[in-house]
Amino acid sequence: MKKVHNFSAGPGILPEEVIRKASEAILNFNNLGLSLIEISHRSKDFEEVMARARSLVKELLQLNDDYEVVYLQGGASLQFHMVPLNLLKNKAAYINTGTWASEAIAEAKKVGKVDVIASSEDRKFTYIPSNFEIPADADYLHFTSNNTIYGTQWKKFPESTIPLVCDMSSDIFSRRFDASKFSLIYAGAQKNMGPAGTTMVLFRKDILGKTGRNLPKMLDYEVHYKKDSMFNTPPVFAVYVSMLTLQWIKDNGGLEWIEKLNELKAQTFYDQLDSNPMFVGTVEKEFRSTMNATFLLTNPALEGEFDKMLKEAGISGLKGHRSVGGYRASMYNALPLESVKVLTSVMREFANKFA
Amino acid sequence: MKKVHNFSAGPGILPEEVIRKASEAILNFNNLGLSLIEISHRSKDFEEVMARARSLVKELLQLNDDYEVVYLQGGASLQFHMVPLNLLKNKAAYINTGTWASEAIAEAKKVGKVDVIASSEDRKFTYIPSNFEIPADADYLHFTSNNTIYGTQWKKFPESTIPLVCDMSSDIFSRRFDASKFSLIYAGAQKNMGPAGTTMVLFRKDILGKTGRNLPKMLDYEVHYKKDSMFNTPPVFAVYVSMLTLQWIKDNGGLEWIEKLNELKAQTFYDQLDSNPMFVGTVEKEFRSTMNATFLLTNPALEGEFDKMLKEAGISGLKGHRSVGGYRASMYNALPLESVKVLTSVMREFANKFA
Repeated sequence: MKKVHNFSAGPGILPEEVIRKASEAILNFNNLGLSLIEISHRSKDFEEVMARARSLVKELLQLNDDYEVVYLQGGASLQFHMVPLNLLKNKAAYINTGTWASEAIAEAKKVGKVDVIASSEDRKFTYIPSNFEIPADADYLHFTSNNTIYGTQWKKFPESTIPLVCDMSSDIFSRRFDASKFSLIYAGAQKNMGPAGTTMVLFRKDILGKTGRNLPKMLDYEVHYKKDSMFNTPPVFAVYVSMLTLQWIKDNGGLEWIEKLNELKAQTFYDQLDSNPMFVGTVEKEFRSTMNATFLLTNPALEGEFDKMLKEAGISGLKGHRSVGGYRASMYNALPLESVKVLTSVMREFANKFA
Repeated sequence: MKKVHNFSAGPGILPEEVIRKASEAILNFNNLGLSLIEISHRSKDFEEVMARARSLVKELLQLNDDYEVVYLQGGASLQFHMVPLNLLKNKAAYINTGTWASEAIAEAKKVGKVDVIASSEDRKFTYIPSNFEIPADADYLHFTSNNTIYGTQWKKFPESTIPLVCDMSSDIFSRRFDASKFSLIYAGAQKNMGPAGTTMVLFRKDILGKTGRNLPKMLDYEVHYKKDSMFNTPPVFAVYVSMLTLQWIKDNGGLEWIEKLNELKAQTFYDQLDSNPMFVGTVEKEFRSTMNATFLLTNPALEGEFDKMLKEAGISGLKGHRSVGGYRASMYNALPLESVKVLTSVMREFANKFA
């Protein structure tokens, strides 16, 4: 079968080796003669998977025992509600850098007082705000590290004296950073760390239990970590594949390795974008995402021709988000450099043909 | 490899054919050259899966267009919160028949006023209450159709003039019943209709929007059904495997077929239980579950011997829930009659050896 170059924005590409192991575990897990998806989550075999999936997060991010890691359900969208429910007592500060940040703000406002201290909406979310003041009396500062739809990314994280909370759904484990500066990080697994169906949340234990709310058990981080992320039946398959994906990162050289690979892929793409007169990027250069590169044709009338060439080259998932149009090359961890090179050669060819 | 007889209480056994197809789709879905778990959920191929998974529920249960079906995340445990959040305005009536019913009651009490109108706690949840009065002014009546841990099951559902709400996690699609008498039914997929990681919820549209609450989007049934159960990234794999499992039920003859098979399995087991002096059932006969048969050894000192014989016969997952002990034979839809016969022959052999 023809090789497909998978630029899907999410659920995104996973390592071939992970896909193969996941398929095998569905047939026969750990040589038990049973499928991974028909055994008790309280079995020794699955308990080990969950423990490993949790410890790999701390290992890769070099976090100490002040932190806990849980795998929940409901996506980042449920975290938009859970974060304020668990942390917002007086007020919270939010930064608006795009669609998902806006959704997080809308949900937090249903729970309590929210100060939107900075926004890039004035220029259609094409940059990351600077020069904002973080209110010292806010319970936390929330931001979105990478904006999947608009294609911007925080290159340097805000310095904050109040707890930092971050939605890292689309760039978690794509680069090195000091995770110990954060009080809580969440990420839907389906972009850089696994399949759809689970959300990783890590947090400092000492930020919990301060709001005085009598929380529903399923929405209480404390309930989940005190039960080792098995308060109720976890999403077994999604946690298993996330564990395999984190193990793949570790085995290949950890975040240092993946960061270099991702920078190389991004540079390869953006170099072509900037030197090719047929294309134009949609965001300010210094804030360009290494994960999601958004761009347009300088002559939109040629879209049909470009799409045809993409298809012939086996390139899949390059369409921009339905809310903004254009193109988006999502270059998540598991995307090989080779796929980026196939894309850039199509872009060159396109210019040769139509410039 | 030796055949394993899988009596796991959940995640439970799935049809062999479903397991095989799921494993194949992980490698190459619909011949796309891509894995099921690395394509966009907005792709035509997955949209068809979701639509089919939703329509099969209505087809099997013969529901009309007053009803909607969604696949959510968070298990039945999140429904314990979502049900009152969406439906409870004045007060709700609940019936307590075991662990999960108790959890549902505890969560509903965090949202509003709850009347527990009947309970079988007085005799350790070994029966299903009758002779209760349903308050006409309650917003709904909630009960649990099958009690996975204690092994009791409602054989005849309550007649009610107020909306009926039911947790059917462990017996959905195991028998025929008039679903149109219910206003809302929910079920974690991982027992009778799929793998862990998704929860099916069906409801009459006209019961929503009456509480006046400004709901978090992720906890609002209306948000989910208006987006065709794709408000955010759904648990792709779990929905796909649920779809395959429902299709398997349909292809084999629907609920009439599965009900007969399940009754035959239950009768085979309980006949042996009742005629064998080494074993005793733990619940009242008329309320015995066809799904989860709970029992004890009359001589607990022989547990080690019995466990050894089970292991030799390839019988897995027969241990009772950690909260009650003893044994539990879970005989979900996909468990073959053959496995029950292997179990009953071990029970016979055990009596021959030790009686």
